[in-house]
Amino acid sequence: MSAPLSNAEVPRGFTFAATHCGLKKSRLDLALIISEAPANTAAIFTTNRVQAAPVRVCKAHLKESRGKVRAVIVNSGNANCCTGPAGLAASRSTAARVARALGCAPREILVCSTGVIGTPLRVEKILNAVPALALAGNSDANAFEQVARAIMTTDTVPKWAAAKCTIGGKPVRILGCAKGSGMIHPNMATTLSFIVTDAAISAPLLSRALRAAAAPTLNSITVDGDTSTNDTCAVLANGKSGAPKIAAESRDYKKFTAALRDVLKSLALAIVEDGEGAQHIIEIEVRGAPSDRSADQIARTIAQSSLVKTAFAGADPNWGRILAAAGRSGVDFDFERVDIWLAGIPVCRRGREYPFDERVAHEKMLAKNVSIVVDLRSGRGRACIWTCDFTQEYVHINASYRT
Amino acid sequence: MSAPLSNAEVPRGFTFAATHCGLKKSRLDLALIISEAPANTAAIFTTNRVQAAPVRVCKAHLKESRGKVRAVIVNSGNANCCTGPAGLAASRSTAARVARALGCAPREILVCSTGVIGTPLRVEKILNAVPALALAGNSDANAFEQVARAIMTTDTVPKWAAAKCTIGGKPVRILGCAKGSGMIHPNMATTLSFIVTDAAISAPLLSRALRAAAAPTLNSITVDGDTSTNDTCAVLANGKSGAPKIAAESRDYKKFTAALRDVLKSLALAIVEDGEGAQHIIEIEVRGAPSDRSADQIARTIAQSSLVKTAFAGADPNWGRILAAAGRSGVDFDFERVDIWLAGIPVCRRGREYPFDERVAHEKMLAKNVSIVVDLRSGRGRACIWTCDFTQEYVHINASYRT
Repeated sequence: MSAPLSNAEVPRGFTFAATHCGLKKSRLDLALIISEAPANTAAIFTTNRVQAAPVRVCKAHLKESRGKVRAVIVNSGNANCCTGPAGLAASRSTAARVARALGCAPREILVCSTGVIGTPLRVEKILNAVPALALAGNSDANAFEQVARAIMTTDTVPKWAAAKCTIGGKPVRILGCAKGSGMIHPNMATTLSFIVTDAAISAPLLSRALRAAAAPTLNSITVDGDTSTNDTCAVLANGKSGAPKIAAESRDYKKFTAALRDVLKSLALAIVEDGEGAQHIIEIEVRGAPSDRSADQIARTIAQSSLVKTAFAGADPNWGRILAAAGRSGVDFDFERVDIWLAGIPVCRRGREYPFDERVAHEKMLAKNVSIVVDLRSGRGRACIWTCDFTQEYVHINASYRT
Repeated sequence: MSAPLSNAEVPRGFTFAATHCGLKKSRLDLALIISEAPANTAAIFTTNRVQAAPVRVCKAHLKESRGKVRAVIVNSGNANCCTGPAGLAASRSTAARVARALGCAPREILVCSTGVIGTPLRVEKILNAVPALALAGNSDANAFEQVARAIMTTDTVPKWAAAKCTIGGKPVRILGCAKGSGMIHPNMATTLSFIVTDAAISAPLLSRALRAAAAPTLNSITVDGDTSTNDTCAVLANGKSGAPKIAAESRDYKKFTAALRDVLKSLALAIVEDGEGAQHIIEIEVRGAPSDRSADQIARTIAQSSLVKTAFAGADPNWGRILAAAGRSGVDFDFERVDIWLAGIPVCRRGREYPFDERVAHEKMLAKNVSIVVDLRSGRGRACIWTCDFTQEYVHINASYRT
């Protein structure tokens, strides 16, 4: 559960609104984030070859507007993906309707969708709701929380995170929300996440900051190995803090990037914690690898192993499955040099069993947060990836998702 | 369940024996296959970097003996993997003990193990059992079935398959057994499978035939994406049929390879059918791809998608997940050309929904065998992969494997 949000944490110059437009049965399913001035905006998107209509429209709009955005509109309940020309038209008409309500150009609007793939979007429900939604905006914490709720699909809790930093003596606020608990396997993007900040920062630097902050956070988690067709993470910076503009890779840039990384890390861990059916957050650290890249490859392979993830569901200290997953990662290493710790307990030394008390290990693995450390003792490369365990509840959720 | 086996299907010149040596609580856990004459032998092994001691010993023995094998000894209940120098010594002493009983060299013995990883092997239990086992051999169908039972771990049924072909007017028999229902994701090998034949065939040709027969069968199935550390498939050809020797890539070679492929295909499908917790066998055909290789890559990605496999557990015709999995396979294609059929029903045309009756599709997906056909309409490449659905029972089995 995200920490309670106070009004003081909400960046200046944004309003937030959410409503039920009818795509879902009864819950909030449409959200609108408005910046009172055009905000410099950076975004990263899914790497899936199958890209939803809204992803394509967002990319085009960011290019046309040179990263100047007035608003983001998001619906849940339908991904508007694999919906052909009608799907593209739906995203475009949604942007146009929001632009008309705000008195700006459609290229200044980002459109995002999440939900089931392949079902035509009943866009008229969105179009009908936009005019009232555009007038309903509020700039307080409660309104932002409603946005976080409206973008949920199988999420069990809304997810938000806030951070502050001081630029030129003035406070700058960063606030983000995210949705996602399945089909989460990011590479340069994850699920939907929207970050607003009243920092003043140039578009190219904002883009660099986003990429730097996303790599060790949103791009270092995996729930089920499936990459969504709609993944989008957008950061809007409207400069309304009154702090001086960040225009170079200065100390201020570093402070801003660190705060942005804090927000993305909180959101990323909240997504893993809310992973479909998850009981445990598993932190997988690989060190002593030939390179950071190979450490990352091994950590991701372990994080995606069904056998490892089901063992964690049973709190079973089955380290052999961890080493076997590392062995099929494609990285060349000598497994007879490998040390493994499970929940802080040494369980494998030089590729073979290091005698440990199974019952103590089992007890420790019942904790919510459990760590795996794999030391290849073959170099200085390291990486850290977060995932969750794989439970019967995951299967239950996904076998009956549409019914 | 494999078809009943008759004595006439058993190749000449082999004996089979199985016993309970004490590695498992009460079930058969040790099997021995003896060829009365040295058999030309070909084998393929796991590609995992973490290789069990018996795999390393088998590779060395095949090299030293130039592929001449007298016997294969197999234990279940312990994989003898990640067991250090003691594990290697255990495999070597097992081979030596069998060799002594048969009066041959240790290099003529293959040693295989399957079961839990990382637990020291109580090899004395095997060594004590070998002398009696070596005398207990029988050449009938029943004895072979006992071998098939003794190599089981989480398998719910023993698996065997037989085929015949005629070489130079004489019948040649091929008979195989396999174990495996989890950690099954082959690449040039899968689980344990042992094939005996009374064909006379040169070692290089036997090796070629095995690779050709395994590619579209044992190497085209996946249960959970995890590659075992012990995968071995060995074929022993002892020439006792009296049929002329296959010494060139002749018509006889093709007949033999086709019969071997039939055996491996039956075993492969039996493994998928017995996949941990599986309710359905899913055949995934990808066609119209830029190349066979890219078709294979897409088919394997679909076969490994947790979201696709859980949808099949719920008989949910959620074709969007299939297309999304194809989209993250790494293959470059235009998803707006793609057609998809589910259980024979067209559900997606040109990358978008093709209206179909959800209830009819659901009913058809309740069948044991369900097919997915994905046509990229972008070339002539094709591939076929088999997998099973992903059920709550899989999680249950693997969360509690060692308890």
